[in-house]
Amino acid sequence: MTHPAQSAQPGLTITDVRLTPVLVADPPLLNTQGVHQPYTPRLIIEVVTEGGAAGLGETYGDSKYLALAEPLARRLVGRQVYDLNAVMALVDAVAVDPDDAGAAGALDVGGLRGVQTADKLRLSVASGFEVACLDALGHALGLPVHALLGGKVRDSVEYSAYLFYKYGAHPEGVPAQPDDWGPALDPEGVVRQARMFSERYGFTSFKLKGGVFPPDEEIAAVRALAAAFPRQPLRLDPNGAWSVETSVRVAEELGDVLEYLEDPALGTPAMAEVAARTGIPLATNMCVTTFGEIAPAFTSGAVQVVLSDHHYWGGLRNTQKLASVCETFGVGVSMHSNTHLGISLAAMSHVAATVPNLHHACDSHYPWQAEDVLTERITFKDGRVTVGDAPGLGVELDRERLAALHRRWLDDDGRMRDRDDAAAMRVTEPGWTTPSVPRW
Amino acid sequence: MTHPAQSAQPGLTITDVRLTPVLVADPPLLNTQGVHQPYTPRLIIEVVTEGGAAGLGETYGDSKYLALAEPLARRLVGRQVYDLNAVMALVDAVAVDPDDAGAAGALDVGGLRGVQTADKLRLSVASGFEVACLDALGHALGLPVHALLGGKVRDSVEYSAYLFYKYGAHPEGVPAQPDDWGPALDPEGVVRQARMFSERYGFTSFKLKGGVFPPDEEIAAVRALAAAFPRQPLRLDPNGAWSVETSVRVAEELGDVLEYLEDPALGTPAMAEVAARTGIPLATNMCVTTFGEIAPAFTSGAVQVVLSDHHYWGGLRNTQKLASVCETFGVGVSMHSNTHLGISLAAMSHVAATVPNLHHACDSHYPWQAEDVLTERITFKDGRVTVGDAPGLGVELDRERLAALHRRWLDDDGRMRDRDDAAAMRVTEPGWTTPSVPRW
Repeated sequence: MTHPAQSAQPGLTITDVRLTPVLVADPPLLNTQGVHQPYTPRLIIEVVTEGGAAGLGETYGDSKYLALAEPLARRLVGRQVYDLNAVMALVDAVAVDPDDAGAAGALDVGGLRGVQTADKLRLSVASGFEVACLDALGHALGLPVHALLGGKVRDSVEYSAYLFYKYGAHPEGVPAQPDDWGPALDPEGVVRQARMFSERYGFTSFKLKGGVFPPDEEIAAVRALAAAFPRQPLRLDPNGAWSVETSVRVAEELGDVLEYLEDPALGTPAMAEVAARTGIPLATNMCVTTFGEIAPAFTSGAVQVVLSDHHYWGGLRNTQKLASVCETFGVGVSMHSNTHLGISLAAMSHVAATVPNLHHACDSHYPWQAEDVLTERITFKDGRVTVGDAPGLGVELDRERLAALHRRWLDDDGRMRDRDDAAAMRVTEPGWTTPSVPRW
Repeated sequence: MTHPAQSAQPGLTITDVRLTPVLVADPPLLNTQGVHQPYTPRLIIEVVTEGGAAGLGETYGDSKYLALAEPLARRLVGRQVYDLNAVMALVDAVAVDPDDAGAAGALDVGGLRGVQTADKLRLSVASGFEVACLDALGHALGLPVHALLGGKVRDSVEYSAYLFYKYGAHPEGVPAQPDDWGPALDPEGVVRQARMFSERYGFTSFKLKGGVFPPDEEIAAVRALAAAFPRQPLRLDPNGAWSVETSVRVAEELGDVLEYLEDPALGTPAMAEVAARTGIPLATNMCVTTFGEIAPAFTSGAVQVVLSDHHYWGGLRNTQKLASVCETFGVGVSMHSNTHLGISLAAMSHVAATVPNLHHACDSHYPWQAEDVLTERITFKDGRVTVGDAPGLGVELDRERLAALHRRWLDDDGRMRDRDDAAAMRVTEPGWTTPSVPRW
């Protein structure tokens, strides 16, 4: 055996980092805070190495994320693209405007993304860079991203249909892209939407975004889904809109058909009380969204499944870390989604393929995004995304699409550059404000 | 930016796995169970890929580890060398003879290594394969192992001087290698040994293996160290030999000079009681040696520092996972050592360099091993091992040394192939049996 005295791989120095904010069409999906705007901001990150390898990342694109991304991008240049632990340490040094974190109430728009802290804001930005570095490293080495994460333990990743109450269209007079999903404002509409998801993508599990209508209406919708799709896993997620009493009542009424109930009530103490009083597993992407929130939630039995959003948690390697912590404490793990494009879907799929203890279908908004920045959309077959062995994430940037979506961001008068579901709701319902919780 | 449609890296298929058990000279170091034998078994693992890259790993070499290593080695051939998550899953499928795990009492030889379970036995074997795969992958890609673990966050790793009570030599008439450390059976001997460690290697923190003499003698030894090396971090590790009362008393008497007290009492409930009654941090490599032991220990506040032995825990990536769990729960982390060679020291150093929350000097027996299987010994400078950027672990196998130490294993009549500190003690003290605990 020879151990060649070869020097470290050349050409892995990061020479350029490009940030491109875009606005992506989004249908009028309802949640407890309001409705999705016609366009939602995302940030596309490109990392280029000396050797010419390039990688793609994606994260939230609101102004406060962009403000952090720029100084971080400058700090990346000159580092080795594999130097991810050091990059995460760098992130800590990037200053966050205190107005952008921590000060916001738990139920502002950020509330749907859980607690807002400076650390979490940094991690959400860092995640896009981490994914871009992994993609670039994969291209440089000729290895898929999953191999850089220790290799896949499954060849495809299951996703669930992410059902929303929705309007048929955005309000008249507002610039928007039409969609072909139709309205869904009652049990029949929800089942019709679920059938479309099933036919188009082959999904066999279903998550309904709740907290929009009074609980009895949402119970009826889940019952209708159970009748239409017997014995298929169902989930309901009211984003913390309910009191403990309401949560317990819904859990009792739907306990026979729900795989889990997601964030019925807001905060770890309330979730712990619901968990103690019901037999149904509780999932969360609101009360546990940072490593600091894990100990109180796990030791109080507040959550049985943590849904990792790799953006919040700081990337794919942190998602693996979270999965390890969950496994250690006998808590389940799956993946959460907010509005995202194909780069993030590929990233989610690569990491999800490497997590042995991922036993629930992941969430994805991707079917709602008719627009993307890739040359080829990622496809769901039988509700699953195949994780291949092409280098990096296995996706390719479409520069024309990127430029078009960036132009939309440039042309925007500022109203869409920060997601605000309550403001979008006021167009239809003047006087709407973010409801206080518990709403029911 | 182009994303070349390159196929996955060729040549990374594992084509050969070689297992070489060796016997390594070991000085007569004392612990609460007895004394080290003149020779200790280790297993050297070589993984070779289709492309010609080779990697080295090392783990425990007792018969029960060898019995598991052989079927696992066969299962590795044909897999991709980066496929580490799948390898860990494979490990679960390797059968363990129930006599080799679980049945042994907490204070047999295995007791120094914590709980003995089939899973842990498998992980200890798997760790050697994981390290060998990472070394081979690093050679194939031209990257150091730390880069495969996300990159180092420090350029060198601090180690502590691992002080032992010891005899001047192994018993007469027993085949053994002499050592030049002299005896250490009282405070003066311990301080003399510490000075040698300081002079030879530049260590500035000191750990004394205790549980050998009555607590007052060991308190006196630590006091002598504190006088000789004022304000330098000191640790005492009696391997669980003490009662809660004794532990609390020692903690109170040495609280002003100890960085931490390691495994004063046996088991999580006893450790939790000691922790609750003293202000001194407790470290462990006995009550938390598997992921399954973490939750009860962390939720009861039993330990403040976990010492990862990457062999027990299943490798370098699992050590990173452990570090993440520790960080999440506000528990410190460092690294434990049992008798080992340079391959494991290199592996420890690579992973330790990547762990941001490693705030204590690691333990290493390496200075006690005058023999090694490397062409060049790893050196300590100012008590630190430099973690470089050469491919893989940055070490090279000396085939002649390997063959010589393997020949010793072949020639052994079987008495040294399984470490048994009590049996070695009986040569000097006929009738010696492993003491029951608490011993004091």
